[in-house]
Amino acid sequence: MKVIDSIFQMQSFAESVRLQGKKISFVPTMGYFHEGHLDLMREARKIGDCLVVSIYVNPTQFGPKEDLSKYPRDFDRDCRMAASVAVDVIFYPSDKDMYPAHYQTYVNVEKVTQNLCGLSRPGHFRGVTTVCNKLFNIVKPHVAVFGRKDFQQFITIKRMVADLNLDLEIIGLATVREADGLAMSSRNVYLKENERSSALNLIKSLKLAQKLYNAGERNSTIIINEVTKLIKSSPYIDIDYIKICDTTTLADLEEITGEAVIALAVKVGTTRLIDNHVFGEKLNA
Amino acid sequence: MKVIDSIFQMQSFAESVRLQGKKISFVPTMGYFHEGHLDLMREARKIGDCLVVSIYVNPTQFGPKEDLSKYPRDFDRDCRMAASVAVDVIFYPSDKDMYPAHYQTYVNVEKVTQNLCGLSRPGHFRGVTTVCNKLFNIVKPHVAVFGRKDFQQFITIKRMVADLNLDLEIIGLATVREADGLAMSSRNVYLKENERSSALNLIKSLKLAQKLYNAGERNSTIIINEVTKLIKSSPYIDIDYIKICDTTTLADLEEITGEAVIALAVKVGTTRLIDNHVFGEKLNA
Repeated sequence: MKVIDSIFQMQSFAESVRLQGKKISFVPTMGYFHEGHLDLMREARKIGDCLVVSIYVNPTQFGPKEDLSKYPRDFDRDCRMAASVAVDVIFYPSDKDMYPAHYQTYVNVEKVTQNLCGLSRPGHFRGVTTVCNKLFNIVKPHVAVFGRKDFQQFITIKRMVADLNLDLEIIGLATVREADGLAMSSRNVYLKENERSSALNLIKSLKLAQKLYNAGERNSTIIINEVTKLIKSSPYIDIDYIKICDTTTLADLEEITGEAVIALAVKVGTTRLIDNHVFGEKLNA
Repeated sequence: MKVIDSIFQMQSFAESVRLQGKKISFVPTMGYFHEGHLDLMREARKIGDCLVVSIYVNPTQFGPKEDLSKYPRDFDRDCRMAASVAVDVIFYPSDKDMYPAHYQTYVNVEKVTQNLCGLSRPGHFRGVTTVCNKLFNIVKPHVAVFGRKDFQQFITIKRMVADLNLDLEIIGLATVREADGLAMSSRNVYLKENERSSALNLIKSLKLAQKLYNAGERNSTIIINEVTKLIKSSPYIDIDYIKICDTTTLADLEEITGEAVIALAVKVGTTRLIDNHVFGEKLNA
């Protein structure tokens, strides 16, 4: 496995791989790998002749009061885990190369970023789309694989790629969960022992919502009220949002008619967690 | 010469050219060619194995009160002129393919777009960078050639390419002028006969500014005042701006120390014209 930290070298390498007619698959990450990341890598491994994984904690997607400085990092452990799933290249750029002096260009996806996390994390998606755009231009993948735990991010990236005519395919994989149903996240490491059981209210909520849906309920307010009650039944947990949205536009839905997602964001203690479920899809828990 | 109007076909063609190890050179245009465009094409012809020219009057770079609907167009004439300088491909997309329903992604270069035309044409550069980003992703050039008559556009595109790590080279060519010194522009066709001599005040201004510079003048206000007097000496002409700026940041300069540009925008009758000159460079007139 090769580790490349220079943008120029990564581009030259990617170009030489493409010139050989080989397919590049790509998993962009912020590191501190868990089973969810490895799942993306295994899938990308099957698709590409050359599998590139980037590890970059992107400062432009963190708000000024968010956890950029304490975001968990362990590069050596990440490299061992990546090697175990046969990653070809780790791309590991520095802040000063990604955002040099006089940096001033940003990519904005203007509509699907407005709702949900866009409301509570202003500027977050601008940072995500900008860094992904840069990474796509550097790694030159044919296919990039994302997790759908970050559902809004996945929809936003797909929108950017379509709108800007980036010639690559975006694949979204189902959320990988712990045995108890908690969605895998690098931020789970922040959870204190007594907060963990409250965090499980997220998966319980999604199951409850699907159960109500199965019983024929299509009114969003009724489902959201039931879910809110469930979440509030445990300590340490504050609701940021509980919403039911159209999966294409991410606009709020009063009634579930077409494909809809229930998306949740909560704080458990000081840790912000998100989860979601597309009605009718399999819930891996 | 091949005419391609489908984004998908253009991308496939570009990818096949790249896979053969050939170099793609690109001249993005809004059509209605003049000698300035042909000059860019001849230069791009020398650089690339495959020369692509796009013709697309991009609606997102026009303001609501600007001349989008009356912008001059003559596709057949453009094709003949392009063929005469051995263009390989004309890319000629439609609005509905470039900006389909639900389109919502824009590229913003935030600082160098603030001054000069950014002040009088809000949103203009957002449209320019967005369409160029799209065209670069579709045409996949190794090199793109721009004219430096649109100096701020040239600087903005270079900034976008560097910031977003687009793996292509941007080349800027000197302004091509009519025999009397008027900078070539598709919009010159709007000028009425009696406005034409007033329009020549632009090149006279640039020459005067260079003459003052040659005589040792480095104070921007003094140069701008002299140029203003000259321009106002003719009828039909209204000044939008006359500024002296740093060529990298495009910030206003009080004193000319490093590399500086004098940039002008005026209205002659109803026609908006721009011109510029980098102090110390050759003035082709």
